[in-house]
Amino acid sequence: MEIIISDKMITDDEFIKNNSVPGPTKEEIRCIVLCKTNISKEDKVLEIGCGTGGLTCEIAKKTKNLISIDKNPKAIETTKMNLKKFNLYNNVKLIKNDGLSIISNINSLNKAIIGGSGNDLEEIIAQIDKKIVKNGKIIVTAILIDTKVQSINQLKKLAYETEIIEVNISKGKILDRGIMMISQNPIAIITGTKK
Amino acid sequence: MEIIISDKMITDDEFIKNNSVPGPTKEEIRCIVLCKTNISKEDKVLEIGCGTGGLTCEIAKKTKNLISIDKNPKAIETTKMNLKKFNLYNNVKLIKNDGLSIISNINSLNKAIIGGSGNDLEEIIAQIDKKIVKNGKIIVTAILIDTKVQSINQLKKLAYETEIIEVNISKGKILDRGIMMISQNPIAIITGTKK
Amino acid sequence: MEIIISDKMITDDEFIKNNSVPGPTKEEIRCIVLCKTNISKEDKVLEIGCGTGGLTCEIAKKTKNLISIDKNPKAIETTKMNLKKFNLYNNVKLIKNDGLSIISNINSLNKAIIGGSGNDLEEIIAQIDKKIVKNGKIIVTAILIDTKVQSINQLKKLAYETEIIEVNISKGKILDRGIMMISQNPIAIITGTKK
Amino acid sequence: MEIIISDKMITDDEFIKNNSVPGPTKEEIRCIVLCKTNISKEDKVLEIGCGTGGLTCEIAKKTKNLISIDKNPKAIETTKMNLKKFNLYNNVKLIKNDGLSIISNINSLNKAIIGGSGNDLEEIIAQIDKKIVKNGKIIVTAILIDTKVQSINQLKKLAYETEIIEVNISKGKILDRGIMMISQNPIAIITGTKK
Repeated sequence: MEIIISDKMITDDEFIKNNSVPGPTKEEIRCIVLCKTNISKEDKVLEIGCGTGGLTCEIAKKTKNLISIDKNPKAIETTKMNLKKFNLYNNVKLIKNDGLSIISNINSLNKAIIGGSGNDLEEIIAQIDKKIVKNGKIIVTAILIDTKVQSINQLKKLAYETEIIEVNISKGKILDRGIMMISQNPIAIITGTKK
Repeated sequence: MEIIISDKMITDDEFIKNNSVPGPTKEEIRCIVLCKTNISKEDKVLEIGCGTGGLTCEIAKKTKNLISIDKNPKAIETTKMNLKKFNLYNNVKLIKNDGLSIISNINSLNKAIIGGSGNDLEEIIAQIDKKIVKNGKIIVTAILIDTKVQSINQLKKLAYETEIIEVNISKGKILDRGIMMISQNPIAIITGTKK
Repeated sequence: MEIIISDKMITDDEFIKNNSVPGPTKEEIRCIVLCKTNISKEDKVLEIGCGTGGLTCEIAKKTKNLISIDKNPKAIETTKMNLKKFNLYNNVKLIKNDGLSIISNINSLNKAIIGGSGNDLEEIIAQIDKKIVKNGKIIVTAILIDTKVQSINQLKKLAYETEIIEVNISKGKILDRGIMMISQNPIAIITGTKK
Repeated sequence: MEIIISDKMITDDEFIKNNSVPGPTKEEIRCIVLCKTNISKEDKVLEIGCGTGGLTCEIAKKTKNLISIDKNPKAIETTKMNLKKFNLYNNVKLIKNDGLSIISNINSLNKAIIGGSGNDLEEIIAQIDKKIVKNGKIIVTAILIDTKVQSINQLKKLAYETEIIEVNISKGKILDRGIMMISQNPIAIITGTKK
């Protein structure tokens, strides 16, 4: 199977959703995360906290070496349904797990994307660091202020080159009487590059 | 009755709401609008589009010379309930009307606040301009992009000194696992000062 | 001297500035901070980190019982010049100090506003807590992500009712070819109310 | 020459700049514009207002059929320097022109990106519409409120399926004492799809 390379993001509405699973990561955020992660087709990628599978599907368009995990069985189920819907299921190893116990079994990684990490964020970053290659990247998408600080501090402690951006997007709802802007919640994207 | 002067805004939750009436204008926006409007207790103030009465209640704490209108009878009813709840009903003349027909009966105005104007925004601003004193102010709160452009253009055409700010506020929801920021929709506040 | 009560904020341009002193706190932020703080004329207020004196001047319009401190002598000097410019110098006790050593000498406080705190934020909040009355308020304005987390966590630890808002404001620059919005940097306002 | 497909954006700092030329379009905005435009290597693309060449370089990585124009000769010069720096000059036809007179000479277009249009925005969109294929896209990046309204209204008038998003991004500056967020100015991205 050939990897189809397209810049176009799947729209938010196209994903199958489950009320007990967060996500999908919004279209524009998926887009920026992919730009920051810059996945090539040989990259070994780990995703922690796949949720609805929004990012999982986009990454799976770029590489066949993707492991995606989530501790919530409903998230695994929903992500699986979305991967199948978009014909990408063969590219992903999907595992119901909390993250830490999986990382030790991985040999090496080019990129890791952390969308959810329970209370283990610092430890997860430390464990990923042991597996990640030079110039590899750890990307954290954070909706909690605490996650922003913890991930930046941990990446700095591990001597990663770090960047943080905060994204506020509103989308126009075109009404008869004019265009009303509807806000999405702010999200931070933290990028660490291993030196 | 003495006017009680307090900087404290009524919180959003304290207002009585009606599903068919927009508002109340969020606490922080009411706060900025009041700073920009700078109402003194002698000021004659007109409010077009009172909605739930959020701004109406705050203005009524500052002056007893407030006329508030709305074409939606449910808005008039809801605003009335809120004014009574906060003991401010005596300070306001509340009128169910579309705006234009009322303005001609007013002698003079110090300040006008436009929160909603149907399709008559430009004409309403033009009519208010005829009644407003030198250094008086017209303030528009706009959630539609179109309203922003129309109000700025009309105020500039009438040679008002104009300012526009766009406000994006998110409010923390304190969860056990951290603080998640929830966005309010963006709103623009356009201030015109008559020269 | 009677306290003049006005909602109108001093505009950003009116303040005397010094290149080595941060601030003034932007007009709309001063406005929201005052609404959240809700100072009455009997209130004893402490301001830590007065900088250019933007908030100092606004608070000094509300109460004569204001102590404002800053460890930077240039900040004290600039704030003094601004207080004199706006005829408010008699209402403020201005002290060059790092905060901690001053708080122990204060008997009681109704409100404290922290705009800058070096590395002592948690300790400063803890010390202020010992002096502040029931229903008193501690307000932190934060431009650093770290300050947001530290202040929320410390206020929660001390059992304060806490609120955090993040404010993104852009201001229109009216050009011939249209209105261009210029962003101010985001700022968080954390409000703790002593229970 | 093979088109190299990479999601990675050139960083803002890598572009050669000229003080009299606006741009480059910020990294994250380029990223979102590319996702919305979804250029494939056969696409014929027109860019109006190339400025510094930020988007020009990114589009030129995707297709060899790009015409980029700007009426400012310094913009053409700067864009040329950047295209050469990133080895993309062979993919672009660069023309100093105001837009309207060029469009008539084009046979057909798949995508058009408008970054600047002087006062001719509506006419430019109308002319592009005559050349663009079904399902083709017109993308406008707007920093002026007026441009947002004009482009949406014109695209709606021409029966395009339209979307508008407003993007506010701030980027962390990692200081010793913490992370300070620095705002970029808000920008709107309007996407019209020909039905």
